Amino acid sequence: MPLDTETYTLPVARTIADLQAQVTAWRAEGLRIGFVPTMGALHEGHLSLVDLAARHADKVVVSIFVNPTQFAPHEDLDAYPRTEQEDAEKLAKRPAHLIFAPAAREMYPEEFDLSIQVSGPSEGLESDARPHFFAGVVTVVAKLFAAVKPDIATFGEKDYQQLLVVKKLVRDLDLGIEIVAGETTREQDGLAMSSRNAYLTSDERRRASQLYAALNNVADTIKQGASITEAREAGLAILHEAGFDPIDYLEVRDAETLTPLETVTSPARVLAAAKLGATRLIDNIPLEI
Amino acid sequence: MPLDTETYTLPVARTIADLQAQVTAWRAEGLRIGFVPTMGALHEGHLSLVDLAARHADKVVVSIFVNPTQFAPHEDLDAYPRTEQEDAEKLAKRPAHLIFAPAAREMYPEEFDLSIQVSGPSEGLESDARPHFFAGVVTVVAKLFAAVKPDIATFGEKDYQQLLVVKKLVRDLDLGIEIVAGETTREQDGLAMSSRNAYLTSDERRRASQLYAALNNVADTIKQGASITEAREAGLAILHEAGFDPIDYLEVRDAETLTPLETVTSPARVLAAAKLGATRLIDNIPLEI
Repeated sequence: MPLDTETYTLPVARTIADLQAQVTAWRAEGLRIGFVPTMGALHEGHLSLVDLAARHADKVVVSIFVNPTQFAPHEDLDAYPRTEQEDAEKLAKRPAHLIFAPAAREMYPEEFDLSIQVSGPSEGLESDARPHFFAGVVTVVAKLFAAVKPDIATFGEKDYQQLLVVKKLVRDLDLGIEIVAGETTREQDGLAMSSRNAYLTSDERRRASQLYAALNNVADTIKQGASITEAREAGLAILHEAGFDPIDYLEVRDAETLTPLETVTSPARVLAAAKLGATRLIDNIPLEI
Repeated sequence: MPLDTETYTLPVARTIADLQAQVTAWRAEGLRIGFVPTMGALHEGHLSLVDLAARHADKVVVSIFVNPTQFAPHEDLDAYPRTEQEDAEKLAKRPAHLIFAPAAREMYPEEFDLSIQVSGPSEGLESDARPHFFAGVVTVVAKLFAAVKPDIATFGEKDYQQLLVVKKLVRDLDLGIEIVAGETTREQDGLAMSSRNAYLTSDERRRASQLYAALNNVADTIKQGASITEAREAGLAILHEAGFDPIDYLEVRDAETLTPLETVTSPARVLAAAKLGATRLIDNIPLEI
């Protein structure tokens, strides 16, 4: 298998054929395959998902692919950080066994005509701000699943709506892949790790932790007996005060279905997305009464 | 595996779990799996696809599932012939090894949210008359492929546009399934075999063969040097004379892409769909100059 092993310690497959040659060989040995899809620019959040996958599988494939179809024309596709050399060095220190880093043309050959939608959990929240986002995510994840054919895959709770959408894809398409959720990894001040944090100025970086503070304030206020409406108002005030603008949403939703709640009687999730300067941040936390 | 073997000679799996238990066992023996998806009401056209699959695989799974999502509300879902006992008896005489006959709830559980589209070959022709047809077909075929995980699958050329759409699904989703096309099986007078032929009155049945005659007339006229426009006019006259009304389309298209042609310089296909009384018939033939 012609893997590029000169530059990196870990083997890197550039084509689906090379990827499948390795995965098929592992499967023939009876090994269980874990998969961690990423867009690169790896931080400790991604690496914790690699560790998590390794606890559920014998071999872990990590994909690095900045998927163009989940970016809108005005979004940050070109600016999105690409750091493959550093990513490979980080992965070499973790229980990862193969990097799959295809070119866009390998995933989307000319005359690519496929689009997969999952309604239900994909509606609202992120879709209001980014209408084509989940169709892009679902289509590329389905293609990556078809290419890797993993037994299990890990997804971070930081992108909570995406996690539910991927679970629904697996269920509705009967893919038989176990989706394991990884808890959000945070900086010391609570800011959720994200590749997009690199866009923040130092002043914005200092204020960014107020997103997590606002989520916790909403959860705590509800736990103390306030209504969702009251709690949201208090949370929005924190975000405005910290300079977030616009605030795309700050919502309390059912944790399984993301349907809006009047009151919290079953496991819920507090979710927010807002811009700080030019950078859009998202985060969420669990809320159980 | 609790397969229902009392009524039929062939085992029948009603659930994806039972299906996969059998297919996984076969695969563990190194056997190659062939798949023939059908909506039942089996005729010699379907059975020839079973024979064809058996020439490319060790074990052949035949699904019988009248897929509700590919019928529009005004179409013939309820009237569509259901003849499972006879279908099973016919399959028992062919190289079929397992019937997969799920209930609609097994394929579409409550809160089913998935939709898969393949643009390109699905545009125009059938989609003009049946706008939601191919989304329904593609979604159920992707689910059946995920459930059976076949090495090869056979599809009839009678539904030529569907054949191209399924090939595109497999390519764009990197499913790695070989799609083998089966030639259209015809009655003695040339009428393509179809489960819907059972709807025809005896008078309509007699006139129905003019659909195949019209296709051949178009092809022959072009081979004799006429333009596509002239040939279509002659073909439409035959259909009108035979009482087809409305004629949804009678077209000469590129055989690979189904794009409209000015002149025939590469392999082409002559395709038609038209109603005879209450019954909509479709057919197509190859055209090479």
